[in-house]
Amino acid sequence: MANSAQPIALPNPFAAGCAWIDGKYVPIGEASVPILDTGFVRSDLTYDVASVWEGRFFRLDDHLERFFTGCERLRLIPPLTKAEIRSIMVETVSRSGLREAYVEVIVTRGVPGPGQRDPRLYQPRLYVYAIPYVWIVKPELQARGTDVFVTQNTHRIPSSSVDPTVKNFHWGDFIRGMFEAYDRDAWVPILPDQNGMVTEGPGFNVFAMVDDVLYTPVRGVLEGITRRTAIEIAKDLGIKVAVGEVPVEDLYRSTEIFLTSTAGGVMPVATLDGKPVGNGNPGPVTTKIRDRYWELHSDPNYSHEVDYT
Amino acid sequence: MANSAQPIALPNPFAAGCAWIDGKYVPIGEASVPILDTGFVRSDLTYDVASVWEGRFFRLDDHLERFFTGCERLRLIPPLTKAEIRSIMVETVSRSGLREAYVEVIVTRGVPGPGQRDPRLYQPRLYVYAIPYVWIVKPELQARGTDVFVTQNTHRIPSSSVDPTVKNFHWGDFIRGMFEAYDRDAWVPILPDQNGMVTEGPGFNVFAMVDDVLYTPVRGVLEGITRRTAIEIAKDLGIKVAVGEVPVEDLYRSTEIFLTSTAGGVMPVATLDGKPVGNGNPGPVTTKIRDRYWELHSDPNYSHEVDYT
Repeated sequence: MANSAQPIALPNPFAAGCAWIDGKYVPIGEASVPILDTGFVRSDLTYDVASVWEGRFFRLDDHLERFFTGCERLRLIPPLTKAEIRSIMVETVSRSGLREAYVEVIVTRGVPGPGQRDPRLYQPRLYVYAIPYVWIVKPELQARGTDVFVTQNTHRIPSSSVDPTVKNFHWGDFIRGMFEAYDRDAWVPILPDQNGMVTEGPGFNVFAMVDDVLYTPVRGVLEGITRRTAIEIAKDLGIKVAVGEVPVEDLYRSTEIFLTSTAGGVMPVATLDGKPVGNGNPGPVTTKIRDRYWELHSDPNYSHEVDYT
Repeated sequence: MANSAQPIALPNPFAAGCAWIDGKYVPIGEASVPILDTGFVRSDLTYDVASVWEGRFFRLDDHLERFFTGCERLRLIPPLTKAEIRSIMVETVSRSGLREAYVEVIVTRGVPGPGQRDPRLYQPRLYVYAIPYVWIVKPELQARGTDVFVTQNTHRIPSSSVDPTVKNFHWGDFIRGMFEAYDRDAWVPILPDQNGMVTEGPGFNVFAMVDDVLYTPVRGVLEGITRRTAIEIAKDLGIKVAVGEVPVEDLYRSTEIFLTSTAGGVMPVATLDGKPVGNGNPGPVTTKIRDRYWELHSDPNYSHEVDYT
């Protein structure tokens, strides 16, 4: 019966995502972590996320550089070199065939031997996966802008406890903030520190236009690659940028607010604590930076093509 | 050849530990967590650990009660009832055959569907495992006491960021503290809060005898079951107990310090920041509480037998 010369197109098992675990590429649905990995049972790890847009990686080497700096700060020695990890990241995307992807790399402290409790003795483990691009604010909502809430009962974990420049999964404060936002009919929380200064939200940095200056917090935040890109773009556009302490009160007199993340880009904010920011539509500065951000994704100085063959 | 009436003793595949994952009991070495579980990639979970000593569970129902309270505080609905989870915990121990075990139960927020970002929509996941009993301070070192260091560059994550009474894996501060301790030739860190008050260390509560009163911190700590047991024992023994704020300076004038944890019990401290505590040997109060703690493990009011058949 089935004896045609026509080749049969098999579905790609990696179409929903591709992971690299213990030296093997596996479909994302089958990718897993040993339950005793201290990345899970101690959240002892660091990670990074790069994106692929229209078949091109965006600033991959900048992500890798930050990732390796983070490993060093945690005294975590990745089991492979930067070049090897880079190849694996590209390969997960290539195998998945995804033209728009969210590509995560994780190094954990690893699995203790029986009775071991000294993290210096564990063998660090590497995990990589590519899944379809993730939007913190979906594109249809970005046209209007999202609804943001400044948490009142939750402070960002301070730097003297956990270094926010080392990307980590200590999201307890963020998750608590998300529930606080939901309870106020908002979608996205921004967390202040204990001194009432703006920090960041779950997976993003914050920018605010106040008195024609574009502010973003200097301390207590991840030094985001999208944040860096937005600052570069703003300076190129002749916008005055101030990276400094940003009191929460300043947010309330902003004419524009936007959020930046690899997972969603430059995302306009429509309302803050239920009240419109500016006229409630994405402002001119936000729009210009956002447009330019996406243009850079095809610029060879910022991005490179994935070989899908 | 092999045709004897003698039954062949097969090795127990669960001897190194037994886990319950997705409704199945599996050897610990094969137990794993989906890589996209937000318990791993957000540390969005709570957990508890009970112990088995000489074939008896210790205060299992107290652990379960605390665990369910923690789930509620995180708005995390366990996928099974308390009675069902209890049975699974007992069964992992029974299958492992372990007479001394460390039994962990975890509920995570679960795996988001494709593109999902709202944690209210995920299906929480349950994990249970029993492994050989874990010692934060090994018994041979307990005879002498361990070496403790009060961290100078690391504060415990404050309650306004992450609730310490909900047992969590936000161990970034603890791990940083452990490396700080290693750098000072100590084994175990104690973390102060931002106001110079004693909190806790990686997996344990802290007690100190100062002016004949037994102090333990009231705030910014897990309400440990071993802590509760030690307080009950001390009161029974007629020792004055104060659960309150404990300034770090008070540790330096303690005549005895001990640590409490399900993973190791009541653990004497020999040195603090390199100097002997008291005369440098486990003190009389520590020893009395420690002895009574282990006696209670055979008391039917505190423990119950595991059926290994």
